[in-house]
Amino acid sequence: MCDASHGRCRIAPQSGTAFTLNKGDVLRIIDPMGEQVADLFAFHRDDHNCVLSSGRSIDYASKIYLSTGDVLYANDSRPMFTIGEDQVGRHDFLLTPCSQEMFEILYKVKGHHPSCFENLYTHLAPHGIKPSQITTTFNVFMNVRVREDGVVSVEPPTSRAGQWVELRAEMDLLCGLTACSAEGSNNGSFKPIEYEILRAKG
Amino acid sequence: MCDASHGRCRIAPQSGTAFTLNKGDVLRIIDPMGEQVADLFAFHRDDHNCVLSSGRSIDYASKIYLSTGDVLYANDSRPMFTIGEDQVGRHDFLLTPCSQEMFEILYKVKGHHPSCFENLYTHLAPHGIKPSQITTTFNVFMNVRVREDGVVSVEPPTSRAGQWVELRAEMDLLCGLTACSAEGSNNGSFKPIEYEILRAKG
Repeated sequence: MCDASHGRCRIAPQSGTAFTLNKGDVLRIIDPMGEQVADLFAFHRDDHNCVLSSGRSIDYASKIYLSTGDVLYANDSRPMFTIGEDQVGRHDFLLTPCSQEMFEILYKVKGHHPSCFENLYTHLAPHGIKPSQITTTFNVFMNVRVREDGVVSVEPPTSRAGQWVELRAEMDLLCGLTACSAEGSNNGSFKPIEYEILRAKG
Repeated sequence: MCDASHGRCRIAPQSGTAFTLNKGDVLRIIDPMGEQVADLFAFHRDDHNCVLSSGRSIDYASKIYLSTGDVLYANDSRPMFTIGEDQVGRHDFLLTPCSQEMFEILYKVKGHHPSCFENLYTHLAPHGIKPSQITTTFNVFMNVRVREDGVVSVEPPTSRAGQWVELRAEMDLLCGLTACSAEGSNNGSFKPIEYEILRAKG
């Protein structure tokens, strides 16, 4: 088990992980090869009714694209993360993580397909999380464009090899993080994601 | 208690209600005076882990503005509603219902303010629903504009007096519905909402 407090850990292509953060820790999410997406979901570590909320975050920011200085809020309107250094500047907060059903509905896939949803709930299950508790993820590096008429398209990520975004934990957190499994969100390739935890002092 | 199966029921300004639908029933939501918003949330009637999902619905529709023929999906990717006749054509599915915290954060309100979130969880509580189970609502008649650069603005609803939208239940449902409490979403006025349930035959 890689300890992200002591250097970078790598999430293999089409897989995921779960970990905890203390308030004040900084989570650095790195795209080591470029054009890859990482889906992030989070709960208050000691109160799993408190979860990441796309709808509150977009409402309070009055914008759909969040970057440095913006806050990701919980469903109870408490800040969960503040975005720090952001070398990419484009992430998505509209879409749920890719799932078996998504591959079947949108891409007519037959048989099992790895998905961020499965990779999140599998790794969060030992912490007592049910699949239904995972809602819209913060989709790091995912490049979702919304036209004026409302049409949504998933474009290749703008992240280049080695670029990262940092998120400061504003409460004690339980997090799930993936290296995305969807062909459509990472320009047709499957790549790893790396992450590192810069522990708060004290 | 008004029975919406036998004619229109009125939701008073800044209040809400809860009711059940059978698969096949049509829920007609009417804006009797124009420029008012109604927040709708729903659960599978017999499985409250199955809830309305903005993120899945937007993903499967590939657009943020849903209207006639579009489907509102649950978090487990099953269809919950199909939109039928839509005399307005503009609704929001990005934002969480207005809440006490929203009024404090965005509008610096001191003291209690009625909110759709409170009106939903209060009326859904007798059915065993906790506030944390209510995520992003389908905000009927709410006119949220997203610019190309991602900036979100809440504009006056385009609904005129007497116009409605119809939603067909695709499963047995428990629903919460409000007449919105937020000054910002209904052009500064508080008005009622009406609804009617057209029961499926058989």
